[in-house]
Amino acid sequence: MSNHSDLSIIKIGGNIIDDPARLDAFLEKFAALPGKKILVHGGGKIATRLAADLGLEAQVVDGRRITDAEMLKVVTMVYAGLTNKSIVAYLQKYSCDAVGLSGADGNAIKAVKRPVGEIDYGFAGDILADSVNEHAIKRFLESGFTPVFSAITHNGLGQLLNTNADTIASALAVGLASSYNVSLLYCFEKDGVLRDVNDDSSVIEVIRSGEFESLKANQVVHAGMIPKLQNAFDAIAKGVVDVFIGNADNLHHYQQQKFGTRLSA
Amino acid sequence: MSNHSDLSIIKIGGNIIDDPARLDAFLEKFAALPGKKILVHGGGKIATRLAADLGLEAQVVDGRRITDAEMLKVVTMVYAGLTNKSIVAYLQKYSCDAVGLSGADGNAIKAVKRPVGEIDYGFAGDILADSVNEHAIKRFLESGFTPVFSAITHNGLGQLLNTNADTIASALAVGLASSYNVSLLYCFEKDGVLRDVNDDSSVIEVIRSGEFESLKANQVVHAGMIPKLQNAFDAIAKGVVDVFIGNADNLHHYQQQKFGTRLSA
Repeated sequence: MSNHSDLSIIKIGGNIIDDPARLDAFLEKFAALPGKKILVHGGGKIATRLAADLGLEAQVVDGRRITDAEMLKVVTMVYAGLTNKSIVAYLQKYSCDAVGLSGADGNAIKAVKRPVGEIDYGFAGDILADSVNEHAIKRFLESGFTPVFSAITHNGLGQLLNTNADTIASALAVGLASSYNVSLLYCFEKDGVLRDVNDDSSVIEVIRSGEFESLKANQVVHAGMIPKLQNAFDAIAKGVVDVFIGNADNLHHYQQQKFGTRLSA
Repeated sequence: MSNHSDLSIIKIGGNIIDDPARLDAFLEKFAALPGKKILVHGGGKIATRLAADLGLEAQVVDGRRITDAEMLKVVTMVYAGLTNKSIVAYLQKYSCDAVGLSGADGNAIKAVKRPVGEIDYGFAGDILADSVNEHAIKRFLESGFTPVFSAITHNGLGQLLNTNADTIASALAVGLASSYNVSLLYCFEKDGVLRDVNDDSSVIEVIRSGEFESLKANQVVHAGMIPKLQNAFDAIAKGVVDVFIGNADNLHHYQQQKFGTRLSA
């Protein structure tokens, strides 16, 4: 272990954001976590609903939203506006000194507009190896603020971009790994990585990187989990201390290092 | 003069925000201003249009918008989301290290929900004498960031509130007057305070507080300007160095202290 201070980066998605009672309970637990921390939140159904109310049709190709100019306005309004500021106001209620950010704020996260290939994804932003502005984010953290990132970035030339929240969370973790002992937590709908996908109590406590190949080969983990785990071990290979995958409702167990499945080197 | 550093607080309104070309030109000039600075922006027509598109009817009583729960969502999305992040992305393009904030972020500005009297204004926030969190805003400024405030505040208990942008600008100016030499700039549609309301070239260069009463008595300034001037001199009485009232298009003249009409003690 280095003598850097600890930093927890926690990503929540639509299943929490779309449920006000669960979101409130989660934010109270998040606020109570000691030490430096960053929250990254995805979108949820509010943007889809707003787009529908405005007569825009949500286009999704290969699980990725096509972001045309009107849809970019919608996601900027919802993610960086309504959802982000509502979360910040709740965290302040719970005495967590949150600051809501997009990648444009403080030039914290730059992305590039996804190149047009067979599909034109519109204003979708891809994260590159140097996308995370470590210096900017450290200034927020060292000032005592808790950054809350929405999944909106910019290209540095005035253009906002819609970006995947999971990717932002892992890019932040990797980008800050040389300054902090970073733990990355992905919250999803299950209590952890399951040994038996039909048995919610079959959570695997720890997976070491050396075990991952054999788990894959023996089909011990559900095929749908493989990309998530691969991304996690990639982050660990780049200096992130550990990655936890679990249920946001159980965040209070994280202080005892007992949150879902822990992945480490 | 104290040995504090200078701070310029600049407020722009709908006439600039609703005109992309003017907004872009203004932001380039704002970015070029040396020294510490804060931008405060109002709403503009986008929120009204979005509300109409969603079938909400904008209710205005005595020039103040009634903010019901649905309208609060709309203004939070537009002011704190779309408008704020678009401005920040443009300022970053112009190498100004902007951070877009609501009053909830960093607990920077707290307000109280306007008490229900004859009229229920809904989620409208009133600024009090201790609303501005000087310590929080100094942390942003001293970290080298340029805060960009939307006109959304919070009550500290998780509730966002819609707040008048002019009031936010003057509250920030007064709240930071003991830490900085604060100049407050109000941008509006005229080049300054006019001696003759029908002659746009009749800008009064300087008004000292001692002259204000006689200007009022002699009806030298347009009646509609009196409340603006009164608020400005109130801010000066509370420690703000000077207040400028002028046209955002002329911001580049401010470096020579030649922006519109200058009010001072």
